[in-house]
Amino acid sequence: MSTIGNSTGATPGLAAPLQVCDIGSFHVGGHMVSLTGMAPRSRVSTAHGAVHPIDPNGEMIVGQMYVQYVKLAAPRGRHPLLLWHGGGMSGVNWETTPDGRAGWQMFFLHAGFDVFVSDAVERGRASWAPYPDVYPEAPYFRTAREAWEETFRFGPADSWSADPARRHAHDGLRFPVARMEAFMNQFVPRWGGNDTLTQHAYDALIGRLDSSIVLTHSQGGNFGLNAALHAPDRIKAVISLEPSGAPDPEHYDPTALRGIPHLFLWGDYLDQHPFWINSVPNVRRWVEALAAAGVDVQWIDLPSRGITGNSHALMADNNSDLIAEIVLDWMREKKLVS
Amino acid sequence: MSTIGNSTGATPGLAAPLQVCDIGSFHVGGHMVSLTGMAPRSRVSTAHGAVHPIDPNGEMIVGQMYVQYVKLAAPRGRHPLLLWHGGGMSGVNWETTPDGRAGWQMFFLHAGFDVFVSDAVERGRASWAPYPDVYPEAPYFRTAREAWEETFRFGPADSWSADPARRHAHDGLRFPVARMEAFMNQFVPRWGGNDTLTQHAYDALIGRLDSSIVLTHSQGGNFGLNAALHAPDRIKAVISLEPSGAPDPEHYDPTALRGIPHLFLWGDYLDQHPFWINSVPNVRRWVEALAAAGVDVQWIDLPSRGITGNSHALMADNNSDLIAEIVLDWMREKKLVS
Repeated sequence: MSTIGNSTGATPGLAAPLQVCDIGSFHVGGHMVSLTGMAPRSRVSTAHGAVHPIDPNGEMIVGQMYVQYVKLAAPRGRHPLLLWHGGGMSGVNWETTPDGRAGWQMFFLHAGFDVFVSDAVERGRASWAPYPDVYPEAPYFRTAREAWEETFRFGPADSWSADPARRHAHDGLRFPVARMEAFMNQFVPRWGGNDTLTQHAYDALIGRLDSSIVLTHSQGGNFGLNAALHAPDRIKAVISLEPSGAPDPEHYDPTALRGIPHLFLWGDYLDQHPFWINSVPNVRRWVEALAAAGVDVQWIDLPSRGITGNSHALMADNNSDLIAEIVLDWMREKKLVS
Repeated sequence: MSTIGNSTGATPGLAAPLQVCDIGSFHVGGHMVSLTGMAPRSRVSTAHGAVHPIDPNGEMIVGQMYVQYVKLAAPRGRHPLLLWHGGGMSGVNWETTPDGRAGWQMFFLHAGFDVFVSDAVERGRASWAPYPDVYPEAPYFRTAREAWEETFRFGPADSWSADPARRHAHDGLRFPVARMEAFMNQFVPRWGGNDTLTQHAYDALIGRLDSSIVLTHSQGGNFGLNAALHAPDRIKAVISLEPSGAPDPEHYDPTALRGIPHLFLWGDYLDQHPFWINSVPNVRRWVEALAAAGVDVQWIDLPSRGITGNSHALMADNNSDLIAEIVLDWMREKKLVS
């Protein structure tokens, strides 16, 4: 594993206008299915509108993923940067932070990258499919308590309350807890059985672009690490913010990844939350396998660099620009941006 | 009702880079609910990841709407332009067209407007809430047949087939039927009972901006027309593409709308599809009430201007730039852009 130097690059100028040559979107990875055997219904499409008979049987597309891009007139990044969100979330995670600052989409546009933000299968603008007809089970809706006390590590067990005045956060927490409701606005339902559909769609996105840099968060991490195994010729770097899973080195050989630098970045309080106590070792095993195979891999524990208080929502914490700058420094060192 | 002149403005230059000062997003209109009485579950968050117990009970936000904005360094539009999609759709409708051209979001950015694209409550990045716990019923999933033969008027009854070679479109149809699957990728589920939540969120968006121009499609039409009634001081124009509903003049007085120009725009084949045969008269009644109250209102039937073949998907048809230009000419006439 390599180390990187202290930051020497200037923070991208967030005040200067971006020269944008295109904003647009597409879907990838879907396929048509035909549903049969469901009873007819009827609906009113708008208040005071006509009653409209509905036959729920027929063709629809399932398994598609949504991708929105912003392309610069003169990109300095050597490859497009793909931002892949985590579980129960959508690409909104990369936009304006809960406390109203520019998010990582804007940060990396200002850093010179064409940025592609996706909503994975079943999330946000990707749409979702009927269950149990297409998806195997009912979705999960994230509760504030689960987010606060477990996945996002805002506070210890039993520290969440519906009453903002009675919520307790970890000492020194960087997440802006006064904006918890704004963060909750971003939650979307998730399913447990769609990994194959989702990986297929991510792989289709990689196949559509000549080359790319993949930057993932949480559940997106495993998809990004697998995408690199599936297309080592197209993916030029993998940056994983607190991935919740990784390929199992018992089943996957990382040798083909030797030309692809990998960065793993971790926040604080990881040893106080069972989900993370259980998840981190799986990722560490893959990182050790990468290093043993000669892959250029770096593991950054932010607290070990004196950066304490980061939650799982690294791109939403109040030092999100600093974290992005650490990523950008690493990208500069790897010659991924001029 | 007024008439507008022939187009004299140049089509906005889609080739020149946009000078963008900000891209971001926010949610409006949501409120926290607390769910109780549901049985515990468990899930795996990522392949090979740890098993994670789930308590579905607790707090979550419902009723929120997603809004994404692109702001220009030097806007020429006098007010931000808000694009509100139709039923079973999301803001993706305004992005890249199914046949891969720049959509209306880009068209109106190039025309000089700050553009706000929203995903209504329950759609896309707005997320959705559990049913029957929060929403009253199960969602509707749009089938290709329903879209093709009824709502979007791509072909007559019994003209849809899962086999592209056996689909029949209306003679002269402007929708690019070879790209039907790309359009289907954009479909999202809808519910029938959330109009109050949705109107509340749209009204909250209007309240957040000093002033705005509202441009709606289909189901969005009724929300836009009502939003103007609720905030006639803040809304500076209402442009309705084929609204599927409108306020009932028996219950609403349009007098307060006298300072707000209204444009209604309609495509072809409206008299061949029962949903539209039933829906258009409700809108016409409101338009007649607007005109009788002295509101500046224009109703454009595109075929009467020699523009034939437009489906309900006016912003996705292959002459979408021409339709946008008609809207822009009207906005120029109303001094809404310099």
